[in-house]
Amino acid sequence: MAKVKLIKIREEILSENKQLADKIRKDLSDKKTTLLNIMSSPGSGKTSLILKTIELLRETFSMAVIEADLDSTVDADKIAGAGIKAVQIETGGFCHVNAAMLEKAADTLDLQSLDLVILENVGNLVCPAQADTGAHINVVILSIPEGDDKPLKYPVIFKGVNAVVLNKTDYLQVAAFNRDKFWEYIRSLNPKAAQFEVSCATGEGTEKWSAWLASQLHTAAE
Amino acid sequence: MAKVKLIKIREEILSENKQLADKIRKDLSDKKTTLLNIMSSPGSGKTSLILKTIELLRETFSMAVIEADLDSTVDADKIAGAGIKAVQIETGGFCHVNAAMLEKAADTLDLQSLDLVILENVGNLVCPAQADTGAHINVVILSIPEGDDKPLKYPVIFKGVNAVVLNKTDYLQVAAFNRDKFWEYIRSLNPKAAQFEVSCATGEGTEKWSAWLASQLHTAAE
Repeated sequence: MAKVKLIKIREEILSENKQLADKIRKDLSDKKTTLLNIMSSPGSGKTSLILKTIELLRETFSMAVIEADLDSTVDADKIAGAGIKAVQIETGGFCHVNAAMLEKAADTLDLQSLDLVILENVGNLVCPAQADTGAHINVVILSIPEGDDKPLKYPVIFKGVNAVVLNKTDYLQVAAFNRDKFWEYIRSLNPKAAQFEVSCATGEGTEKWSAWLASQLHTAAE
Repeated sequence: MAKVKLIKIREEILSENKQLADKIRKDLSDKKTTLLNIMSSPGSGKTSLILKTIELLRETFSMAVIEADLDSTVDADKIAGAGIKAVQIETGGFCHVNAAMLEKAADTLDLQSLDLVILENVGNLVCPAQADTGAHINVVILSIPEGDDKPLKYPVIFKGVNAVVLNKTDYLQVAAFNRDKFWEYIRSLNPKAAQFEVSCATGEGTEKWSAWLASQLHTAAE
């Protein structure tokens, strides 16, 4: 049956992907470049958080952004507008970034000169959790309007990350969102994940996030 | 190379899926049962729109709901709480519902007695666009906080639907969302799609949506 064959080939692909991801991670580490993979649903604020991070860290670290999108350059244009090198991966309908796509995009960057490369993954709370991109740091954003029950419904992505960012805290007044319940779910799934609450619109909480990120880089100041 | 094999097997699977979807669609039509597939990002309001639809149409039509989730029954519990039959598909990490999953869930329902079966797909704006579930009517929801540029970034799902529902209009006061631009994008991608603006929180616009849906059913009143 085709399904059984598919599962076998999928395992083969995942194992090839993992090997390439490990190689990418090591090559980047050797160059003291840190790769940050940012994942979330569409519209949770990946691009906004990246723009805030650029604003707060650009004086201290050299950065570039890899933007993945099904077939537009909307986000890459915004990053380039901020004066930061942006590389576009058009996945052509593919639902997440894998290590091979990342490698191809990273090859166009002068990695030796970069402290931080930020990957904005495809907006999707399911598939990006399943493929190692080679990143050193994996982060998921959830935004207040999406609802506090999302960790229960999409547990895999929340389990595998180094940090969880709760964005759009400026919506707390209009949304029925229980922060205590949300963080309780997160702690039960992933007790080690760093936790941040931010509003990229007002800037609230973004300094704490960027300070943490800075401390995680290979080139972190002593 | 594994990748080439994967593409071939994927095509095989898609073609098998399409055949099964066509069969499901025909079987349901023969029973005068309509299958509605609702897709969106996580947290855009699929469950809320379904609950509103139940409230508005339950006196006129007999309904059941098929809930797909990675591994929770949060939504199915809400539907069952409204006194409507809810069947759960736990996709176990799989990112969308395919025809085989739908058939298995539908087999547990007394289809002959049902006017409308609503499928709540996995929260994902990418993958559900790629697999025919057998539905007669496909609908995508976008919510105001996700941003007006989403049709540009996830065009495939917007292209293939019969209706687009813009939800959470009660957020218009706090969100920077350009409705004219959004509907212009939609019309350029899919000029035939029916268009609705609703707030499932306040109920605004939901009667117009449910009246349209009622008119699309095999068992629509003359």
